Formats: sequence, structure tokens, C-alpha cells
Amino acid sequence: MTMLTKEYIAEQFRLLQDDICQQLEAADGGGRFLEDNWQRPEGGGGRSRVLEGATIEKGGVMFSAVHGPLPDVTAKAMNLPPTTFFATGVSIVLHPHSPMAPIIHMNVRYFETGNGRWWFGGGIDLTPHYVVPEDARFFHASLKNTCDRFHSDFYPRFKSNADDYFFIKHRQETRGIGGIFFDYLDENTGLNQEEIFQFTYAVGKTFAPVYTQLLENARHRAWGDPEKQWQMLRRGRYVEFNLVWDRGTKFGLETNGRVESILMSMPPVATWVYNRKPEPGSKEAETLDLLKKGIDWV
Amino acid sequence: MTMLTKEYIAEQFRLLQDDICQQLEAADGGGRFLEDNWQRPEGGGGRSRVLEGATIEKGGVMFSAVHGPLPDVTAKAMNLPPTTFFATGVSIVLHPHSPMAPIIHMNVRYFETGNGRWWFGGGIDLTPHYVVPEDARFFHASLKNTCDRFHSDFYPRFKSNADDYFFIKHRQETRGIGGIFFDYLDENTGLNQEEIFQFTYAVGKTFAPVYTQLLENARHRAWGDPEKQWQMLRRGRYVEFNLVWDRGTKFGLETNGRVESILMSMPPVATWVYNRKPEPGSKEAETLDLLKKGIDWV
Repeated sequence: MTMLTKEYIAEQFRLLQDDICQQLEAADGGGRFLEDNWQRPEGGGGRSRVLEGATIEKGGVMFSAVHGPLPDVTAKAMNLPPTTFFATGVSIVLHPHSPMAPIIHMNVRYFETGNGRWWFGGGIDLTPHYVVPEDARFFHASLKNTCDRFHSDFYPRFKSNADDYFFIKHRQETRGIGGIFFDYLDENTGLNQEEIFQFTYAVGKTFAPVYTQLLENARHRAWGDPEKQWQMLRRGRYVEFNLVWDRGTKFGLETNGRVESILMSMPPVATWVYNRKPEPGSKEAETLDLLKKGIDWV
Repeated sequence: MTMLTKEYIAEQFRLLQDDICQQLEAADGGGRFLEDNWQRPEGGGGRSRVLEGATIEKGGVMFSAVHGPLPDVTAKAMNLPPTTFFATGVSIVLHPHSPMAPIIHMNVRYFETGNGRWWFGGGIDLTPHYVVPEDARFFHASLKNTCDRFHSDFYPRFKSNADDYFFIKHRQETRGIGGIFFDYLDENTGLNQEEIFQFTYAVGKTFAPVYTQLLENARHRAWGDPEKQWQMLRRGRYVEFNLVWDRGTKFGLETNGRVESILMSMPPVATWVYNRKPEPGSKEAETLDLLKKGIDWV
């Protein structure tokens, strides 16, 4: 069986970044991405695209393809002898202006070592400031639809992964309504490398049309100061998850990764108020009630 | 030699909280602390005081005295057999409205185990949004003055500790201009328990008059939008340090501590802008140049 080259996969991810940026500019209706190319001293680099738009207050769509010696800590964690690695991926976080529209995160990635191991990872998850059940159902149904084209196990497994992963342990609440999350996908899935690439790529392709629809759904929802204040608090929770619990962020910051790329996920503004609890019965309290694991949205 | 009881130390810390709150209300010139008492299910509790004032935008002065079985992770880290613990302390973080006034943090604490080990810890450190050299000299001279009354080694050792501790590794910059930081102070210092208590208490007593003076120094410094924006970015860095690197915060969040007390250190508002760098030669760039270890301010 022929294998896809790492150069091919990186190029496809770069094209995916282009395609997504184009769709997001159309959805934003005003903003334009600014591009920032960077090199990694140890090998490779990236193409960062950031947007401060009309609908999307702060967004980043980052492509990178890096290589070099495998960090000792990774080699140890994976029980591998000293070797080299190659990693490429696209990472996205979008923070909308409107509190009635959700924050979204997407990532697809490929990793390969110098001694022949390879795997794909990725996922999409949604963090509404206010949970809108029909949005949540549409979002999860879209992910399930993409997963089901490749393997009937994927959606339930990866949905459950996302519930577990995007959990703010110290608050005992999920970051949002989850989505799908997968890692270390290789031939143990029963799919070959090209098929797993196709699946990962399909997840990437699902992202822009789904988020465009969610922004469209939110466009006419009214909001004022109270909703904006709640959004700022929820963005504070987003910061807490990313800096305290997100393994990718922690790993990046602890291993001298590119800080501005890693922290592009931070919201433009966030607030913290001591011991603020929503009124029982308020729509904020209703949202908190839905920030838990194991809700079957489909 | 008679030992101070843990009840006595806790009571002194509680009185210290009272004294500091009174002085801070006077310095604030408008705000009043709100009190919030809480119980810890496993034993003990605390008295939280929070302020949204005229000069201090968000401040917390927290007292706690808690006890129970020593968490396994702590016992292991300290090479202790399973035992109980008692911990009491006062923790403070104040975020002023004015970008020309500094953020300040103070903590004094006492820890004792069921099998007879005890130690004191604490410190004060300053995080100016704009470093003002005369403020920095005054601040460090005040800390040195307190330290020197007890041991000539204390200031240089604890100043160096603070430089190392309050370091944002992923940014390769210090959180602010440091201060003093000490932990595990016991009879190995050459001082007895009461003397170490007196030192720790003196650090606590140094806090309010010093910060009152710093607020007074800043009162007539003009500022506008650009300074406010810089303050918000620096508050973002404060969040990054506390959530990514602060051992106390991480330990608290990972061991089911009281979240609202731990995260009272969060600023009221913080911002993140992709790859924002100050103009060379600007006062913001001058401040960044002073956010490094090893500056001798005294």
C-alpha cells in the first residue's frame, strides 16, 4: 500500500486554511484576515491568519508544518526511542461579537515520527454563551453526519471524548456543548492512512459551512448589556479551561512553542467577578444546566 | 520552649485581615469590603472580603483556617506518612482602576502537620503596568527594611526567590518587579517559631502602608485610552502567570480547593490581542525592558 507523503498532507492542510478563510470572510461580511508567516528555529514554520471582523470579534486560523528532533518529554510519554518528528495542522478559534453566537474551535493535525509511526487527530467543539438547543442539535447532527460516512463508531466515541476533554474540572462544568475530539487515529481504526486522512479532512471541511449557519442563526437574536456581561464571564471560563486544563496549550507553553499561535485562542476581552452566580430560573442558569457531560443532542 | 498554638496564629491572621481591610478602605476613599463566610466540608473555613472601590477596581483580602487529612499528593511530595494538616493564612490581590498604579499581591501563611512539622510562608510582590523606578525603589526598600529587622540574609534570599517565582516562562518576562517570596521557613533559619511568626506578621503589616503610599504616588499621574489598553494587556499576562505557572493556584484547582477564593486574583477585565508588541522607545517598551530577573532596586 502506498502512503501519503507528509508534504502532501501539509499541502492539503494549507489549502484547507485558504478555503476556510475565504468562507469565513464571506460569513463575516466585512473583515479581512491579516497574514503573518513565521519560521521555527528548529525547523519548519507556519502561516497565521487573524481577523478582527464585523461579526467575528477575534479569530485565528493557523496553519503550521514543523519538524525537528522529537522533544524528550514526548518521546518518553509515548515510549519511543530518540527520533525526529513532523507535525502539521490547522487550528481555529473564533470569538464572535454577539453573545448570542457561539465560540467555536476546530483543529485537524497529522503527526509522524522518524521511525515510522504516524497518526491523525482533531475535532470541533462549540461553546455557546447561551445554549440554543436547535443550534446544538444542528451542530451535533452535522458532525455525526461527517463521522458516519467513515465509521459508525466514530461519532459516539469522539463525542464522548469531547465531553471528557472539554471539561472545566475546577468548575465541574463543560466548556460548552462539546462536539467531537479524536487523537492517535491510525490503522487500528480498521481504516488505512488515506482513509483516515480523508476523514480528518472531511472534519475540516465540515467546519466553515456549519459555523456560517450558526452565525446566520444568531444574526437576528437581540441582546443588550446583561447578555454582553454574561458573554464576558463565559469568556473568562474559556480562558480558565485553555490555560489550566487544555493539554495542547500546556504542552506548547511548557516546551517553548510559539506563544502567539498557542494563545490566539484567548478571547479579545474577558472578565472575572467574585462569586457571580446566575439567578435561579434565568436563561443564564438554564445554560449552566446544559453545561454537563453526556447530553445526547442528536 | 513553648510553641505558639495554631489557634493563636489563626487569630492573629484574622486580626491582620481586619487591620488591612480598614487601611485599604481608607486608602480607597469610597469602597467598602463585602464579607462572605464559607465552610470547608472537610474542616475549617474562611472569611472572604472583596471590594469594588473608587481607587481599587477589584480587590480581595481573604482569610482562611482549614484542616483535615493531608492530601495524598502533598504527603507524597513532602515525603510524609499519612497525617492531618492545619493551614491558615491571609491572601490579597488588588487591581487598581488607574493603569499608573500597580497591581499588588500579598500572602502570609502557616502550615502544620499532625506529626509535628510546621512552617511559615508568604511574600509581597508588585506588578506595575508601567514601571516607575522611584516606586520600585521605595517598594523594595520597605521590604528590605522589614526583612533586615529579623535576618540579614532574608531580603537577598527572598528577593531572589520572588524573581524566580514570579516569572512568566513562556513570555520570558517577570510578572512585575518582584518583591519577596519565602516558604518552608522553620527553625533551620536559626530563628525559633515565635520569631518566624513575628517576621511573617511584620511582612503582613508592611503591606497596607506601602500600598497606600503607592496609590498616593499614582493619584495625580494622568492617563488615557492608550494607557488603559496597555493595562488590559498586562492584566492578560497576570492571568497567564496565575493560571499557567502559579503553584498555589494550580494546586488549589487540582485538589478541589475553593474556586472563588483561589481565583479572586483574576483581574476584573483583561484583553488579548494577537502579537501586539509595543513601539520601540515607547514607555510600554521601557516597562518591558524592566520586567526581568536580577534588577537590584535598593
